[in-house]
Formats: sequence, C-alpha cells, structure tokens
Amino acid sequence: MGASTVLISEVGPRDGLQSVARSMATADKCAWIDALVAAGLSEIEVGSFVPARLLPQMADIDAVVAHALGHPGLRVMALVPNLRGAEAAVAAGVHKITIPVSASEAHSMANVRRTRAQMVDEVAAIVYMRQQHAPQLGVEVGVSTAFGCTLQGRVAEDDVLRMAAQLAAAGVDEVGLSDTTGMANPAQVRRLFTRLRSEIGARAGAAHLHNTRGLGLANCLAAWDAGVATFDASLGGLGGCPYAPGASGNVVTEDLVFMFEAMGVRTGVSLERLIAARVPLQRGLPGEPIYGMTPEAGLPKGFRDV
Amino acid sequence: MGASTVLISEVGPRDGLQSVARSMATADKCAWIDALVAAGLSEIEVGSFVPARLLPQMADIDAVVAHALGHPGLRVMALVPNLRGAEAAVAAGVHKITIPVSASEAHSMANVRRTRAQMVDEVAAIVYMRQQHAPQLGVEVGVSTAFGCTLQGRVAEDDVLRMAAQLAAAGVDEVGLSDTTGMANPAQVRRLFTRLRSEIGARAGAAHLHNTRGLGLANCLAAWDAGVATFDASLGGLGGCPYAPGASGNVVTEDLVFMFEAMGVRTGVSLERLIAARVPLQRGLPGEPIYGMTPEAGLPKGFRDV
Repeated sequence: MGASTVLISEVGPRDGLQSVARSMATADKCAWIDALVAAGLSEIEVGSFVPARLLPQMADIDAVVAHALGHPGLRVMALVPNLRGAEAAVAAGVHKITIPVSASEAHSMANVRRTRAQMVDEVAAIVYMRQQHAPQLGVEVGVSTAFGCTLQGRVAEDDVLRMAAQLAAAGVDEVGLSDTTGMANPAQVRRLFTRLRSEIGARAGAAHLHNTRGLGLANCLAAWDAGVATFDASLGGLGGCPYAPGASGNVVTEDLVFMFEAMGVRTGVSLERLIAARVPLQRGLPGEPIYGMTPEAGLPKGFRDV
Repeated sequence: MGASTVLISEVGPRDGLQSVARSMATADKCAWIDALVAAGLSEIEVGSFVPARLLPQMADIDAVVAHALGHPGLRVMALVPNLRGAEAAVAAGVHKITIPVSASEAHSMANVRRTRAQMVDEVAAIVYMRQQHAPQLGVEVGVSTAFGCTLQGRVAEDDVLRMAAQLAAAGVDEVGLSDTTGMANPAQVRRLFTRLRSEIGARAGAAHLHNTRGLGLANCLAAWDAGVATFDASLGGLGGCPYAPGASGNVVTEDLVFMFEAMGVRTGVSLERLIAARVPLQRGLPGEPIYGMTPEAGLPKGFRDV
C-alpha cells in the first residue's frame, strides 16, 4: 500500500483559469487562493508566466504571485513554458516552477512548435539559470501526453521513460507524469509510475490525472499504489468541461481529498473548508460550471473532517 | 493484480428502474434488455419480484422475465426480498435470484421491518425451497450497507463478516457486498473483500458499488485488486441521481467497461454497442437524466472495441 501522507497540489488557479475564456479579476483570484490556503492546501499553482497576448487570463500573474507569497508556509508554484518564463517567475519570487514537456512529438510540435529534444535543451537552460541566479527555486517537469495523445494515439512507454531520464539528467528536481488527454487507465498508471521510480528514483514526481472518462480517482489510487505521494487536482474540476468531447476534466480536489481522508491517508486539508472555497471561485466566475460529487452528496455520517 | 476476465452484471432494469417514480413500458424494457444483450452483457438483473402495490414499476416482471429468457446464453436474474418472491421467481423461470440482507440492524428494520437474524432465517427458507423445487436456481445474497449506513453510521466489519458466514452456512451460492449508501473507500473495499474471501472462500461474490461521492470506479478497482471478478453496474448510472444529496448513484456500466477494457481486462462487452443501448433506455424514459463520462467524451484514439 502507498504513502500514509500525500500532498495535494492545487492547480485550479493555473490549469483551471487558463481553460476558461474570460479572465477572473485579480482580487477574486486572491480571495480564492486565500480560501484554498485556509482549507489547508500547502502548494498552489497560482498561474503561468506566458505572454499576455497568448493567455490574457494570466496577465496579472505578478500581482497574484505577490499576494500568494504573503501566506507563510504556502509553496507558490507557477507554470513556465520556457527560459523567458522561468526568468520572470524567478523575478516574481515563486518558490517552484513546473515546465510541461510532451512525450509525444506530434503534441510537442502542435503545442509549442518545438521538438522534444529542443524542449529538453530548454529545460537544461532553465536549470543552468537556476544554478546561476536562483538556487532555492524548485524545478519540476510534468511529462504531458504520457498516457496517450489525441494526435498520435498511443505513446510508447519507452519514450516516456527516456524523456524522464533525460530530464532528470538535465538536473530537474522532479519529473511527474500527466494524463493530458484523459486516456490513462489504472494498469498503465501503475506500470508507468513504477517504471519511473526505478528509472529516476526519488526524482519521480507528481501524478497529474484527468477525469475525462471517469477514471480520475481510480487512476490516482493506482498512482498511490505505485508510490506516488503528490497529486495535482483542481477545485470543482475546473479546467475544461469534463462532459464535452475532448475536454480535459481535471480530477476534482474535493473528491480526491475525500477519497484519501476516507482511506485514512492524511492530506492536511479540511473538506468543509475546501467546499467553502468553491464560493469565491463561483463569485469570481459567475455561472461557470464546476463539478464534484462529494460537495453535492455531502460528507457521510460519521466522517471526521481535519 | 486481479482477474484477467470479469463479469459485468447489469442491474439497470432492476436497480435503475425501481429508483425512477414512473414506470417504463414493458415493450421498452424488453427493447432495452435486447440492446444490453446485443452489447455482450451475459447477466442482467431484469427486475424484482415484489408486490406491485409497493413497486408498480415492477408489476410486469413476469412478462419481462419471459422475454429475457428468449435470449440463449443470457443469465436472467431477479431480486427477491423474501420466500414469496423467490417462489414467484422460480415459477417465472429465472436462472438466479439475489436477496438483499442488511449488515446494519437499523437499516434492516427500516427497510424490511425484520432483524438481521430474521433475514438469515428467511434466506435459509429460500435455500430449502430451492432444494425441494428448483435445484438449478442460483442464489446470491447482497449484503447491503456493508460499508456504512446513513442511519447508524459506521457498520462494524466484524458484523459484515459474521453475516456473510451465516449466509454461506445457510447454503447460498454467493455472498456479495453492497455499498448501498455510497460511503465506501478503496482501503475499506480491499480489506473487506479480502476478509470475505478468507471467511467464505469461493462463495465470495459480487461488488455492488456506488458513485455517490465519485469513488465508484476507484472502489471497483480496489475490489478487483482483492480478487473480485463480478461487478454490478447500471447503464447510464440509472438508479438515483448521483448529484442529489443521499442519492444512490450506481456505478456507470459504460465507464466501468471502459476502465477494465482499457486495462486489458476482458469484459466481453462492446463499448460502442453499450453506448448504443442508451438509446432505448432514453426512449423508454424520455427526459430522465443519465450519466457516464465515456459516452460523453467518446472512445480515445487507438482504443480497440470488442
């Protein structure tokens, strides 16, 4: 069986908000992050350092990071696509960056117009910049399309493992695996995370799994079985409508926390306060659909909240 | 790891339809069952033998059983609450009956106004009737509220195991466990099915799990890990709206089949034809909400249907 304590890494303010066409106001983002922290989340991906013309939803990333840094004990994360983004993240003072690198050549070209090899070089440049200017910065890579690709279909497991080994050799702290396309199944999740750990040891990182076909929590359970102790999730499942074809459909933080806490695996997160954090999210994006079975059903009789 | 082949036991025509206030017309039920058989389902719970004044939705059970028996190779199941129902099921010619027996004394009294001990006696009477009149009849008990009870809260695992041992001693073929209230978690599911197998061996039966708090598939995965090879599920998740407080929320057959087939575990069920079987269901109950992530998202690129 898996770890007795897990880290839930909340990605809603980044992965969720970048999937919604309109922008949440900066004050609403900050109020939402405050509520997430109040629920006990200790790591939050607060946004991305990307050009505002590409993702206007993230144009206020510096202000959001500055606000988040005011929470003592919170690890403030941001996504960066390249060296320029990493430099901006360092200037803003984030604690940890995450860089998406695709295991599918087709997806890499379509998404960032770079080959996988070019992306490994970019990551190496980021690690070098870290050595020179920001030794305290955490650097994570999330290997996207690790479980399948909507463009090329199957992604060879050997390709995923080779990418992970190259990235670990480039000096990143953690390499996680992402089911970008909602194609993962529990057998594959167990196999791939087990191989990841034997390939790169303690640098094996987070599971970023989607609920596109309803398997999100089953896949998280499978990853936990394989020794994964960090799980990305999004409050209300924000991040692509899970009911639309091709949607992303992030794992719902509320349901994931319920699963682990019910199992006796500690998350440090209060479910009641987590459910309360849906209020500022909905205030900031009125009418936006959010998901989650546990918030709808309520906590079962006899359940002890954190 | 678990079994390489599993049996998906479709309970929609019984568990689903009894949860909907209006009645589906007999011809529509038959067309729906035909579509389920065409998808490859080999065991279907087609209804209950209960007084029509209590469940008018099941008033046509004899006609539905007669129709279902026309499918060669289909195992026709029905729920019976007591000896009288079992006699009617035998008269109708069903292949297998399932009897719900609660592990929670509070639930047993509220649901059937009998103690657990009285229900064990009733089951023994049914087994005796089987010996006398229908030696070919399969007899299964589903232990309800096995993972928790909305009335009494926690249900002691020892109580569940004691019930299972008494029922096996009474001579039933299989004893399964039901998460009637949607309170199960994967650690508990693994533990309880593992104990069930060591207590009653090959008489350990099906997992009947709900998706009330989103854990349905994760709990099925956990049961599969513990050696369970028969899983109840309902097409479209019919059986109580999973988004309403206190709802049942059956595991969605389509998503469950997708999970197993994607893992390489054979179900014998075609997903495309299973998704097509939603059409007669919706024709028979216009406007009734049905669920399922896989039907909405579609099958992933490269997925090979049965």
